[in-house]
Amino acid sequence: MGSGGLWQRQAAALTSDMASLDFWFDFASTYSYPAAMRVAPLACDAGVTVRFRPFLLGPIFKAQGWDNSPFNVYEAKGRYMWRDLERLCESQGLPFRKPDPFPQHSLLAARTALVAQDEGCGDDFCRAVFQAEFGEGKQINDPSVIESILRRLNRDPQALLARAQSNEIKNRLRADTEAAIRRGIFGAPTFIAPDGELFWGNDRLEQALAWAARKS
Amino acid sequence: MGSGGLWQRQAAALTSDMASLDFWFDFASTYSYPAAMRVAPLACDAGVTVRFRPFLLGPIFKAQGWDNSPFNVYEAKGRYMWRDLERLCESQGLPFRKPDPFPQHSLLAARTALVAQDEGCGDDFCRAVFQAEFGEGKQINDPSVIESILRRLNRDPQALLARAQSNEIKNRLRADTEAAIRRGIFGAPTFIAPDGELFWGNDRLEQALAWAARKS
Repeated sequence: MGSGGLWQRQAAALTSDMASLDFWFDFASTYSYPAAMRVAPLACDAGVTVRFRPFLLGPIFKAQGWDNSPFNVYEAKGRYMWRDLERLCESQGLPFRKPDPFPQHSLLAARTALVAQDEGCGDDFCRAVFQAEFGEGKQINDPSVIESILRRLNRDPQALLARAQSNEIKNRLRADTEAAIRRGIFGAPTFIAPDGELFWGNDRLEQALAWAARKS
Repeated sequence: MGSGGLWQRQAAALTSDMASLDFWFDFASTYSYPAAMRVAPLACDAGVTVRFRPFLLGPIFKAQGWDNSPFNVYEAKGRYMWRDLERLCESQGLPFRKPDPFPQHSLLAARTALVAQDEGCGDDFCRAVFQAEFGEGKQINDPSVIESILRRLNRDPQALLARAQSNEIKNRLRADTEAAIRRGIFGAPTFIAPDGELFWGNDRLEQALAWAARKS
């Protein structure tokens, strides 16, 4: 795809009823990594604008009786997931390192992502966090890791991190997580079309984009 | 595909080291339905012989702390699964009726499937059970439903059902379920290549076949 086409479509999205899709994810979610890294070109080809929606899975898992990732709670399922993710990353040409500890604490990254969105670099920030976490094995709750990402995006790390700790942002992330629950989200990644149709999992990305494109 | 090609490949499988794949499923498993209905032509195209391996998920779920289907235990996940399965069946042109009650009791069907395999009609029997359960809303623990399937396959229902209740068959199903656990199976459908590589879910069928074909 040419960037000209991308820009035209993004401009069209601002002024028309172009097809759209919400991409809900938690930065700690393993299958959200490949989804985040491949969504942009696929969405562009489908003519769909995708909105990155970070939220927290923790409260949702807690309501299901887990105080840990289900991949840690259920050992055989967890063992399989790591192997499956490794195969998936290999087939997509994505670097992969298992985060240690897993799951990573995703609160700081999620709050900062909301600020980065206000600053116009939200999607790039999200991809950089996923890359640092699952591609380079970095600790995404370490402020210096987040600072370094913001610096590479030519943003002022201190100013953005200060805003990430503001009540406004804390409340916004809480409200987004509550909205995720209301929409029926129980895991990540989840894609939701404007008509409410829900698709769960990296495996459903293509189908979700096709649905969103058809309904616009 | 022509049946000539299929027969040649099946004959080759008996006499050579043709690629193979084990397809593990429980008749009560929702996503095993589309997998069972589409595996044969895909396997034929991939040049892979698929072995149907019925087993019981119950003991595996019990070990994970569930005495019911996780789709009943986790409400939002269950609600999504039924919608997802409905979409999936529609896209595959498969009839779909939600079984009531869910999950169906799959013990009788699983035992009879082992007998049907000995009688040379195992795959057809399995597909007919899935079709009755998820396509027509029939009770698969009702002997008359199983009998009617066996009759349509030109087999003696009484003789096969009697053998299905023999200790030999009961023990074989128990041993197969234990083998499933040993191989790391935690859900269904699961595909396992001869080298032990495991693929979980209807979504992974194509990838599992490609793996099996490459490794042969």
